Amino acid sequence: MSDLPKFVEINEEGPREGFQFEKAVIPTARKIELIDALSQTGLKTIQVASFVNPKNVPGWADAEAVVAGFERRPGIAYTALWLNSKGFERAIATQRLDVKGSITLTASETFLKRNQNRDLAQNLAAQPEIISLYKAHGTPIERGAIMAAFGCNFEGDVAIGTVLGLIGDILSLAEEHGLDIKVMSLADTMAWATPLQIKRMIGAVRERHPGLRLALHLHDTRGMGIANAMAGLEMGVDIFDAAVAGLGGCPFAAHKGAAGNVCTEDLVFMLQEMGIETGIDLDKLIAAATLAEEIVGHPLPGSVKVGGPLDAMRAEHR
Amino acid sequence: MSDLPKFVEINEEGPREGFQFEKAVIPTARKIELIDALSQTGLKTIQVASFVNPKNVPGWADAEAVVAGFERRPGIAYTALWLNSKGFERAIATQRLDVKGSITLTASETFLKRNQNRDLAQNLAAQPEIISLYKAHGTPIERGAIMAAFGCNFEGDVAIGTVLGLIGDILSLAEEHGLDIKVMSLADTMAWATPLQIKRMIGAVRERHPGLRLALHLHDTRGMGIANAMAGLEMGVDIFDAAVAGLGGCPFAAHKGAAGNVCTEDLVFMLQEMGIETGIDLDKLIAAATLAEEIVGHPLPGSVKVGGPLDAMRAEHR
Repeated sequence: MSDLPKFVEINEEGPREGFQFEKAVIPTARKIELIDALSQTGLKTIQVASFVNPKNVPGWADAEAVVAGFERRPGIAYTALWLNSKGFERAIATQRLDVKGSITLTASETFLKRNQNRDLAQNLAAQPEIISLYKAHGTPIERGAIMAAFGCNFEGDVAIGTVLGLIGDILSLAEEHGLDIKVMSLADTMAWATPLQIKRMIGAVRERHPGLRLALHLHDTRGMGIANAMAGLEMGVDIFDAAVAGLGGCPFAAHKGAAGNVCTEDLVFMLQEMGIETGIDLDKLIAAATLAEEIVGHPLPGSVKVGGPLDAMRAEHR
Repeated sequence: MSDLPKFVEINEEGPREGFQFEKAVIPTARKIELIDALSQTGLKTIQVASFVNPKNVPGWADAEAVVAGFERRPGIAYTALWLNSKGFERAIATQRLDVKGSITLTASETFLKRNQNRDLAQNLAAQPEIISLYKAHGTPIERGAIMAAFGCNFEGDVAIGTVLGLIGDILSLAEEHGLDIKVMSLADTMAWATPLQIKRMIGAVRERHPGLRLALHLHDTRGMGIANAMAGLEMGVDIFDAAVAGLGGCPFAAHKGAAGNVCTEDLVFMLQEMGIETGIDLDKLIAAATLAEEIVGHPLPGSVKVGGPLDAMRAEHR
């Protein structure tokens, strides 16, 4: 318990993650409305769009229009996702984003082949070109990331040694290219992690790299999201990706297989109740979650937006 | 991590909790069908009915018929809930239940007054008569329980000292009446707990009563159920109440305020993945959860029944 951080950073990924997942077309104006609502909550990083091939992800065909339309608020980093140089260059071209590079490797070769048509060695060999591209645009590269770090639907369990090896690869690449990796993000891309596995993995990484700041990207597909976040907190992790209302997931059987990031307001509720600062206004965040649900037109997984926060109840009894 | 138990007992409360909560009338035969399905899973304790006033809880007007109809399987304790002597005597009269008494106190006076029209002192003073009633029927009393142990919608936070005091009251009563309390259950009746609070509370109780076995009754109203269970496990708790599919709760806004016990199959999934034995077949439990959802006719909160277990995927890659 002694290792719980005093302050936690949340990277809000709801807009990007959620609108990518929804089957119905969400009007551009409504996407912008949610981003603007999130900008009022105290969140300091919001991933607002996905610059991917509209043939593959029709929900983000309007990425440029969304980015042109939201109101930039000072002190907030507005980020985006891309999967190749074309997507990156589209993001840069908007001139309205806080574009940040990362060195991203994947712990599962099968997953990598299915998604990017590369094996592990090819993926590693492709990184210097990506780094050069970022450098050419003056894009900072301060983050490493490991996808499928806790297990893979196509390969099964992922060994701690595999992840340690990939972190070593990222740090070596960074050193070769004169980069300073400040944060290493471990992604439970396919929701295989349990709290015990989180503790073992983070413990092994911290033992090997005591000075490296760690982030977790968690999915709630099997209901472990908040418990896994707590396990990370207890191991000193103080950066989490999350999605407002649990956007990207859905409790309906009809949406079976929904990926569902850990829900931002449930996570912030837990942090606030445990005395950990986030700088986020929970009531405003719940209002944004309710708006997200209204925009997608079906229930979203988050619990606190239904169960309600506790501070108002407490105030009545003081 | 070192304190994780090797084996965990689950008290399944889904049938009682869920059918009490549902607004639509569930046919008696379908209630029995779910109980019989749960009997096949390896669960060792199943709470099958609630003997309460049918005017207050119409969903359990058929308690006797349900208890008469399910198939008793050897090695399983079939329990029930009651709130007064009349309910207890109805349970006894069925002659088909493993009736067990408990000494139950409540940490919130306001909650107690609203539910049972008694103050804390009156509630304590009423216990000897309840104990005598149990003794007269030869009903074992081996369990103490504290309701609203982690917070109350009507009173706010509950101090650790309050819970320690109530545990002391229960143990004093037990000593006066020659009872051996083997398990003390702490109930987060209104879903106020966070993992940190669970650890602090359980830590304080264990320090005061190192030999006392502890159980947790957790609600998932604010999404903390599994994380709170993990916190309990790490403090050595090895008995949990749970409800298959999260019966009693519902992700629909129309069911706002749903109480929702922690979901049995999500909890068993976590335990199994962490190498903790439960004696429960997760696939059969998921089948029972799917049946429960079909019976109530709307989505229920559990995640693993949608996300799926991991063992089958693992087997493909061995």
